[in-house]
Amino acid sequence: MTAIPLSVGEEILAAQPFNDLIGARLTRFEPGEAVLELDIADRHRQQFGVVHGGVLSYLVDNTLTFACGTVLGAGIVTAGLTVSYLAAARDGVLRATATVTAHAGRRAVATVTVEEIAPDGTARTCAAGQGSAVATRA
Amino acid sequence: MTAIPLSVGEEILAAQPFNDLIGARLTRFEPGEAVLELDIADRHRQQFGVVHGGVLSYLVDNTLTFACGTVLGAGIVTAGLTVSYLAAARDGVLRATATVTAHAGRRAVATVTVEEIAPDGTARTCAAGQGSAVATRA
Amino acid sequence: MTAIPLSVGEEILAAQPFNDLIGARLTRFEPGEAVLELDIADRHRQQFGVVHGGVLSYLVDNTLTFACGTVLGAGIVTAGLTVSYLAAARDGVLRATATVTAHAGRRAVATVTVEEIAPDGTARTCAAGQGSAVATRA
Amino acid sequence: MTAIPLSVGEEILAAQPFNDLIGARLTRFEPGEAVLELDIADRHRQQFGVVHGGVLSYLVDNTLTFACGTVLGAGIVTAGLTVSYLAAARDGVLRATATVTAHAGRRAVATVTVEEIAPDGTARTCAAGQGSAVATRA
Repeated sequence: MTAIPLSVGEEILAAQPFNDLIGARLTRFEPGEAVLELDIADRHRQQFGVVHGGVLSYLVDNTLTFACGTVLGAGIVTAGLTVSYLAAARDGVLRATATVTAHAGRRAVATVTVEEIAPDGTARTCAAGQGSAVATRA
Repeated sequence: MTAIPLSVGEEILAAQPFNDLIGARLTRFEPGEAVLELDIADRHRQQFGVVHGGVLSYLVDNTLTFACGTVLGAGIVTAGLTVSYLAAARDGVLRATATVTAHAGRRAVATVTVEEIAPDGTARTCAAGQGSAVATRA
Repeated sequence: MTAIPLSVGEEILAAQPFNDLIGARLTRFEPGEAVLELDIADRHRQQFGVVHGGVLSYLVDNTLTFACGTVLGAGIVTAGLTVSYLAAARDGVLRATATVTAHAGRRAVATVTVEEIAPDGTARTCAAGQGSAVATRA
Repeated sequence: MTAIPLSVGEEILAAQPFNDLIGARLTRFEPGEAVLELDIADRHRQQFGVVHGGVLSYLVDNTLTFACGTVLGAGIVTAGLTVSYLAAARDGVLRATATVTAHAGRRAVATVTVEEIAPDGTARTCAAGQGSAVATRA
């Protein structure tokens, strides 16, 4: 694996209109690993006031795809994902960390953890997930 | 199961700021079943121009939770979900249909299919998923 | 989809040494659907005396693959699966029912429910799952 | 987390009749981690001669539950799991390694990798999975 500059990952993220809506930023993009962070805002909430599960599943989806992209290249499709919700996220920053845990041929699997970094600096795991991506060209 | 009026479900959805951002509407809300629909717009896309996987996973998350709510009641949390991406969604309407496939005690499982209804009326399955929710009060 | 005779499915199952160990039988094999049944015996249990989760996940894996085979053909590989455990299985018969819920190109997704049919005839859902298979030849 | 002696884990495994059938052994049992190994034999195969997916899903189920048990205690139930199949396993030893990636309250999530260690010593990832367990007593 060759290191891909963070700026390349940032350009890909900037080219995703759906991410503009959500507002995540790429803070790490290294061989086998990617981190997305998001400042929690009111638009991310559901009817009970906590962050919507759809925001967490979005972070799982996108972070795992970036991580898999570091080993498979930019021409990939996400094949699927799973998310387990562990705790409600309320305030501060959401940080999703994806690590490639398996890579075989044109397919890679990444494991993701989403933490809430509360305004007082406390970290708490809110979701854990896993997913895979497949290279579309050899 | 008693039928819950569609308007009750619509009020819950309207109370989700994150859904305002995405723009889905509840079009069916019956015992064991819920349907969310979304008019595909540019803000839903990723860098290759197709609908972002995070939009599909959001629809899976929210539709399964509404469906589980019809059997468990409104006080529930989503425990987790899985999504398999099958085809890219491009234009028209996304329709997510969730059906409760198992219900035991305080836990229910729903299966979800997300279809693209293209402008010419053609339906195509873009994602299939499954997830569960747990009642937080007896 | 053309109907495949049940006897063809039974031959495939008989060719699986691992199924000999477990002892499931194919009781339905129709376009888009497959059912495996298993008489619960002591060899299927874990340390608390109930059926091992690995037996339920085996049934999910094999039933979904048979169901996907009815739409994709016999030359397939299972891509992955998910299982939610809902209730312990204790006695009687385990019946796993898989239904194809999506089929796009060379990939199909099936949803599975595993029920315990207790000796008194009571049915109870013990697990719900979903998985996909991919055709290895066109 | 206090270290639990390997022998305690081995006793739990020995109390699982279903594992007797399959023949896995516990080779690591440390805080947050568990490893199960299995000598591949003909009884583990499917109709194409490779190891049955149900064997891999069994290893994912049991290894994640042992790993979660190291942080939650022995009184747990497995809530669910997901498996992605990456490569066929043929000969040698299957080694499943589970690592706890999140732990919140009474619930823990573990990520699992299943490798084939071929007779010539080559390791290859055959499956990746994730699952969660819940403590049944406080």
